[in-house]
Amino acid sequence: MKYYNNFNIALVGIGNIGSSVYNYLVQKKNYLISQTGSNYNLKYVSAKNLKKRRHLKNIKKKWFSNPLKLAHKDDVDIIIELIGGSEGIAKKIVFSALRNKKHVITANKELIFKYGNELAKIAQENKVNLLFEASVGGGIPVIKSIKESLISNNIFHIYGILNGTTNFILTEIEKTKKNFSTILTEAIKKGYAEPNPTKDLNGEDVKSKLSILSGLCFKSGILSNKFEVQGIQNIDYLDIEYAKEFKLKIKLLAISEVINNKIKLRVHPSLIPENSDLAKIDGANNAIVIEGQPIGKIVYQGLGAGKGPTTSSVISDLTSVLKSEISLPFGYDINKVKKYKTFDFNNHHSKYYLRLTVRDKAGVLSIITNILSSSNVSIQRIIQNPINFNQASIVIITHKCMEKNIKRTIHKISSKNFILKKIVMIRIRDEKKL
Amino acid sequence: MKYYNNFNIALVGIGNIGSSVYNYLVQKKNYLISQTGSNYNLKYVSAKNLKKRRHLKNIKKKWFSNPLKLAHKDDVDIIIELIGGSEGIAKKIVFSALRNKKHVITANKELIFKYGNELAKIAQENKVNLLFEASVGGGIPVIKSIKESLISNNIFHIYGILNGTTNFILTEIEKTKKNFSTILTEAIKKGYAEPNPTKDLNGEDVKSKLSILSGLCFKSGILSNKFEVQGIQNIDYLDIEYAKEFKLKIKLLAISEVINNKIKLRVHPSLIPENSDLAKIDGANNAIVIEGQPIGKIVYQGLGAGKGPTTSSVISDLTSVLKSEISLPFGYDINKVKKYKTFDFNNHHSKYYLRLTVRDKAGVLSIITNILSSSNVSIQRIIQNPINFNQASIVIITHKCMEKNIKRTIHKISSKNFILKKIVMIRIRDEKKL
Repeated sequence: MKYYNNFNIALVGIGNIGSSVYNYLVQKKNYLISQTGSNYNLKYVSAKNLKKRRHLKNIKKKWFSNPLKLAHKDDVDIIIELIGGSEGIAKKIVFSALRNKKHVITANKELIFKYGNELAKIAQENKVNLLFEASVGGGIPVIKSIKESLISNNIFHIYGILNGTTNFILTEIEKTKKNFSTILTEAIKKGYAEPNPTKDLNGEDVKSKLSILSGLCFKSGILSNKFEVQGIQNIDYLDIEYAKEFKLKIKLLAISEVINNKIKLRVHPSLIPENSDLAKIDGANNAIVIEGQPIGKIVYQGLGAGKGPTTSSVISDLTSVLKSEISLPFGYDINKVKKYKTFDFNNHHSKYYLRLTVRDKAGVLSIITNILSSSNVSIQRIIQNPINFNQASIVIITHKCMEKNIKRTIHKISSKNFILKKIVMIRIRDEKKL
Repeated sequence: MKYYNNFNIALVGIGNIGSSVYNYLVQKKNYLISQTGSNYNLKYVSAKNLKKRRHLKNIKKKWFSNPLKLAHKDDVDIIIELIGGSEGIAKKIVFSALRNKKHVITANKELIFKYGNELAKIAQENKVNLLFEASVGGGIPVIKSIKESLISNNIFHIYGILNGTTNFILTEIEKTKKNFSTILTEAIKKGYAEPNPTKDLNGEDVKSKLSILSGLCFKSGILSNKFEVQGIQNIDYLDIEYAKEFKLKIKLLAISEVINNKIKLRVHPSLIPENSDLAKIDGANNAIVIEGQPIGKIVYQGLGAGKGPTTSSVISDLTSVLKSEISLPFGYDINKVKKYKTFDFNNHHSKYYLRLTVRDKAGVLSIITNILSSSNVSIQRIIQNPINFNQASIVIITHKCMEKNIKRTIHKISSKNFILKKIVMIRIRDEKKL
């Protein structure tokens, strides 16, 4: 373990977040030195294009055109990677930086999700830091908390809202009563959603984050198992209205559990009681709930993205390095991970909400109820409302039943020619306290 | 800085929490060693009375009768102090342990509040740890978060619910519609309140905790200034009922702000919107909200006391020591604290709720409204309800006015002979998002 009193930093990726980190490092240098006792030097900055107008003081003096070479330079101790993406330059830089015994700080959840285990091994072998607080939950210091403060706990349950974009969209649909696509277009225009929001909408972004948190909490390494993942693309204003009638709210939940040594990890829209903690998390906020022994339950809330929160996390990682702390990337030895099996999601039990758009003709309801009954799905509540003179929507709330049965039911009903649109299915999680 | 591969631990104080920590250290030894890479030995245990039945395995072998001597023993590296109280044995042990270069882990908020600055100086000089995660917020790892993860932030606002006992009492009064003293008696019987709950009820417990958090966040050292502190002793079921009518809820809030380089720290019952985040925190839960730049707002929630959460915090402190980390007790140099002035609370602005119990006779209301008007307190809402044939309660909601004016008003009205009980005053904090 080498002790540095002076650290040379290379910052790679100067977008929205990168610019904010740049400014912090330039403007708060004296403060950070006073807090950590170490000097640092923001020596190199690199990004795709120097010519892009960024209004960053003295950036030209620090400019380095080939970011890949930074990982090999002797006068670089710390690389802050803010490019993003699991492949391409970000991947190359982080791998070679760790191999060359540079500390790495990154906000790159895709990279950590996909290559975190490999990267952790290299960092651990080379006794350098791989820190990624900003990759999950924006400014919420949940990763350090799990690695250090919750270390004494046997954690068995993690759940919450891990994507600000989708939570913002769901909140806005409810508030404005506009439909999904209108709100999405507005969100993109306002910068609350990325130009290509596919990974946010389809749940993949949340899956990466939940896999990272689970890997840390369950000491399993980051898992790449096939888990149940659905996004909010099929949710529409109608569903939110129905939810209100049932005193429920729709949230894109991330849920991860260890049950009998099996990991059950899933991301999907959920109907939860409107007076529950998580139902109150609106807009671009994130909330993470962790349950374990002996601590019981603990909840973290904060903005899940944005330059302020992300800068806070990146700088907090940096201060650990400046204080010459070397920590295991995952808080435990990556060579001694716990093995778990994967829960077969067909065996999941839940209540379900189904919304069907049907041709309004005689006998439809009897066919539907027959299919439900033959699949062992019993109905708690059913509502039929006309949409226009020959269309109707049918909403069904089931009693608790098995996932495989509800899927079979949906499959069977979907094949009927009176079904006019894709059936919307949302799982109901109506425990009083989530 | 001495590197230990093997740490000898002395545990002092074996009550409810101490027993839980004892069991953890005995039962999870292999786990902790695997997580930290260091060996430890729970060498000595001390408490008032060995004979008390505790059902702790092998405790007799580790028993040491004079706890004060432990701080001087060469074969003790870490002292875990779980006796409590700002004076007496706890104080003596912690001071002499730090002087003798032992690491100290404590859950003792009174001690840290009263002597934290002195203790931090000694720890810092001697390069040993003084860790006190369990002193505020039970299992919530807020202290480590502030010291490490929020280090890059300029924090200007801390608020929340920091006392589980009073929050439990307020929740129960609302649920059961019983009066304050009945609920308190029940809470003591059930162990939710201590046999002598004075410091919980009068706000002093919260003041200690808020002073500790503020000292860490504002980098001021722990402050002993005279702050505004009121408890919940005067709140009764009636107030909770009126609050409901106004769509408000009563919570004992801790609030600390830096405004123009002045610290404004206060603890008092507050009327907050019933749909706000903090209004939803019920029972023995705590919630801590921290606002700063660049992070924005972050919220921590969890059980504020109890053996599980407290054990989690104590053990997380212990793992830091076992990993041979030496951290500054407050996260910054105690010899370089920031200086602030104290905000004069007479200049505080707020809306106020007043409840008067009066003799129901002609002219009373006119006298009251005259006093309000002459003190520059204007009324937003007033409700008079009969209590019995010759008593009435008058509830007044004021517009925003100055604290000194409301206090003058209360003083003047209190002197009138138609006032039958102490006037209840509660500050209203009705910002939409707290």
